Amino acid sequence: MDSLVIAGKEFSSRLIVGTGKYKDGPETRDAIAASGAEMVTVAVRRVNLDRSSESLLDYIDPAKYFLLPNTAGCYTADEAIRAARLGREVGLSDWVKIEVIGDLPTLYPDVQATLEATRVLVKEGFTVLPYTSDDIVFAKRLIDAGAAAVMPLGAPIGTGLGITDSYALRMLRELITEVPLIVDAGLGTASDAALAMEMGFDGVLLNTAIAGAKDPVLMASAMGLGVRAGREAYLAGRMPRRLYATASSPLDGISK
Amino acid sequence: MDSLVIAGKEFSSRLIVGTGKYKDGPETRDAIAASGAEMVTVAVRRVNLDRSSESLLDYIDPAKYFLLPNTAGCYTADEAIRAARLGREVGLSDWVKIEVIGDLPTLYPDVQATLEATRVLVKEGFTVLPYTSDDIVFAKRLIDAGAAAVMPLGAPIGTGLGITDSYALRMLRELITEVPLIVDAGLGTASDAALAMEMGFDGVLLNTAIAGAKDPVLMASAMGLGVRAGREAYLAGRMPRRLYATASSPLDGISK
Amino acid sequence: MDSLVIAGKEFSSRLIVGTGKYKDGPETRDAIAASGAEMVTVAVRRVNLDRSSESLLDYIDPAKYFLLPNTAGCYTADEAIRAARLGREVGLSDWVKIEVIGDLPTLYPDVQATLEATRVLVKEGFTVLPYTSDDIVFAKRLIDAGAAAVMPLGAPIGTGLGITDSYALRMLRELITEVPLIVDAGLGTASDAALAMEMGFDGVLLNTAIAGAKDPVLMASAMGLGVRAGREAYLAGRMPRRLYATASSPLDGISK
Amino acid sequence: MDSLVIAGKEFSSRLIVGTGKYKDGPETRDAIAASGAEMVTVAVRRVNLDRSSESLLDYIDPAKYFLLPNTAGCYTADEAIRAARLGREVGLSDWVKIEVIGDLPTLYPDVQATLEATRVLVKEGFTVLPYTSDDIVFAKRLIDAGAAAVMPLGAPIGTGLGITDSYALRMLRELITEVPLIVDAGLGTASDAALAMEMGFDGVLLNTAIAGAKDPVLMASAMGLGVRAGREAYLAGRMPRRLYATASSPLDGISK
Repeated sequence: MDSLVIAGKEFSSRLIVGTGKYKDGPETRDAIAASGAEMVTVAVRRVNLDRSSESLLDYIDPAKYFLLPNTAGCYTADEAIRAARLGREVGLSDWVKIEVIGDLPTLYPDVQATLEATRVLVKEGFTVLPYTSDDIVFAKRLIDAGAAAVMPLGAPIGTGLGITDSYALRMLRELITEVPLIVDAGLGTASDAALAMEMGFDGVLLNTAIAGAKDPVLMASAMGLGVRAGREAYLAGRMPRRLYATASSPLDGISK
Repeated sequence: MDSLVIAGKEFSSRLIVGTGKYKDGPETRDAIAASGAEMVTVAVRRVNLDRSSESLLDYIDPAKYFLLPNTAGCYTADEAIRAARLGREVGLSDWVKIEVIGDLPTLYPDVQATLEATRVLVKEGFTVLPYTSDDIVFAKRLIDAGAAAVMPLGAPIGTGLGITDSYALRMLRELITEVPLIVDAGLGTASDAALAMEMGFDGVLLNTAIAGAKDPVLMASAMGLGVRAGREAYLAGRMPRRLYATASSPLDGISK
Repeated sequence: MDSLVIAGKEFSSRLIVGTGKYKDGPETRDAIAASGAEMVTVAVRRVNLDRSSESLLDYIDPAKYFLLPNTAGCYTADEAIRAARLGREVGLSDWVKIEVIGDLPTLYPDVQATLEATRVLVKEGFTVLPYTSDDIVFAKRLIDAGAAAVMPLGAPIGTGLGITDSYALRMLRELITEVPLIVDAGLGTASDAALAMEMGFDGVLLNTAIAGAKDPVLMASAMGLGVRAGREAYLAGRMPRRLYATASSPLDGISK
Repeated sequence: MDSLVIAGKEFSSRLIVGTGKYKDGPETRDAIAASGAEMVTVAVRRVNLDRSSESLLDYIDPAKYFLLPNTAGCYTADEAIRAARLGREVGLSDWVKIEVIGDLPTLYPDVQATLEATRVLVKEGFTVLPYTSDDIVFAKRLIDAGAAAVMPLGAPIGTGLGITDSYALRMLRELITEVPLIVDAGLGTASDAALAMEMGFDGVLLNTAIAGAKDPVLMASAMGLGVRAGREAYLAGRMPRRLYATASSPLDGISK
């Protein structure tokens, strides 16, 4: 079976979905169900940890989904480290998606702080999935630091631009094979997700593209199909591109 | 239900598949089944009409699929007209996909001959689906001539390049609403099919992209998923694109 | 010397400029001068032929520029033919740029009418430069009809989109070598013009991109430089593209 | 006059050229002359500092060109700092282009080490021009550290891919206005240089695209023209893009 394996754990779906920006709990629940995702990421800061009032967790059954705590809303390595520890203490998980925002207007990641937090948390026994830029130097350092996967952006969070630098992502994919590579952030629609999978990425993590669609539940379904479509196309091995049907040589090397 | 309607007939799938270039009959049959397509196009010239020996039709059950005869291999309007008539005479169908090749090395369509054949065949009662270029003048003339759908190329036949002129196709989609618009030819992988559907096209017709993949049956499944993903994403209404998350205005008008 | 040769006549500049849409005569004159163009195209319909009042020709010295009458504003082959004849009768030229509009909202060319007009006018001894789409079948027919050059659009007139289908234009360039190929219409800025020349086109024809800029005279100069830059880069032979500096094989075949 | 100003110094050309990878000294000299550049960057490690044998400086007249020492070949902040100091000690300059390679196969910059070296060298009175990625977080930190300009890559060194992430570079340009932004590395041909200037960048730094062309001297001329073309087009204010000529609203926000 073609499953996604991270840190020895198998996931039936290669789509990971977030839980932010939905209208309400029921919409969150229905979109997640429609997406077919098995792994769902939740911001530690947004979980109502004492469960005194309505919580995200009222709508996401931990028996059904694998919860991946994330450090959304953190601006320093220390904040991210504390959020990860808190998530573990309250019993959420010893897995964590590290996300450190480095720039307010753009929400671009602070890759240096992300690397620092990864180093500390790996030593503390966490399974760390860092959200990062498409910088190959940092991607390799994250792996050296013990990251269980590397999650480069397709485009900055919340932009919906798709993969804006297909060369950079293709280079990452070609040179990094030690851990799963998951495109995290920036995708906007189903063909973006399919394309990411066709490029050979191991998975896709999405949030705004679903929650920000006019019909989030239908878009969640579209994304689930898109990821499967792209993965199958990747495994099927696409036809070569040619400038015209009878051209003697294929157009190798075209990245998009 | 979101069905494709052409000339009053409903189709459950928006993917139409061809039958050329497969290794053998069983592969053809399995790929078609995996694609989920309901309409299947067959070259009149390639159907062994007297059924004296093995025929394509041994592998495509007309009770299960809607057969669309096509005029592949024709180089003039007359040849295409004769092929259409022959297809009707032997009981294949009074529907026909007109395809007239105008240029040998590139297999680019001869849109003038296509228009002539369309005019003649519509008058003879055929339901005509012409394969054409992305030329909006001819697209409109085909509609005036009574075409039941217009099928512009994404790229020339057999190239696998995807939609090479997203502006031209977007213009067609914006200005033509009288009949279904189906992207025919040139697509190479599942994300291409998803993208075509996200642009608002009513369907996609594919052949080489499936038959020319390393694993045609798996690629057929990928294409079926891709078309559904793209259609759902179109109906769901994608999020707006922004240069960065907090940018005050969306990047309207980006076509890809 | 690297000159553009059409129908045996040499031109020092590979940039051809139009005369429409300028604010007034002096701006037209100054922009043309700044562009460095030697060939200037004027609409027969817009030349005040009896010279009773101010005319375009008051600002474009026929001793300095090679005037190329065009059939802008014509919607049928007959209108274009009549305009060409009128241009010759009043002594403008026996060269003509054929332009037949086939679709009002888009100004897309009617390639069939263009071909008809070309056939008639070539027989009447005109040197015919037809403006056409990127349809290779019609491009070849125009050559068969005796066109002295073929002028495919980069994008529809007045859009400023640049070359929207680099594959189609690359295919034209690869397969057509009998006559000069000139990108006519759709370009928007200097890098578009440079790119067209780098793709190996013999020249570029521009109008709206200059007249529609905020500072037309400065944009005219930019376009002149862009055409020269692109031509020199083409002749110089660009470096191969690589995914990264030490990649063992170049990324052949990338068209943009 | 439209000059490039860095750290209070005016440069007549917005093109900065490197001196690596040429066949020999005369070719280096001729290409630099043909480019029209005023600022020329030389690797401190490659200058034969005791002038005992032939040196780059035999071919680049410091009276004519502004020499910008660079730290090419350095892999750590310390190496870059030492190279900068050496360049000043031997009288080359107290300006320095910081370049720290972080990844061997890709030559991708180590932005963290670049930032460290920038901090140290600015405090020592250097005018520091750091070569960096398109990471906006680091770009802002380099400015905070006192960089006199920021020089993001268009694509990794030596690839010739052009600007691979036009969104990231457009975001940098929109949000960074305190210091000049110069596209450094990755460009391949004249239209790439023109495009960078049209996007509003203050300058372009090139090396392989010139030295790696078949005819480096002609390509140098092409690049000089391309930069001027792009700059003039930027200042002239391009026409708006439209899907078709009579479309009621322009296609705002398209980045390429």
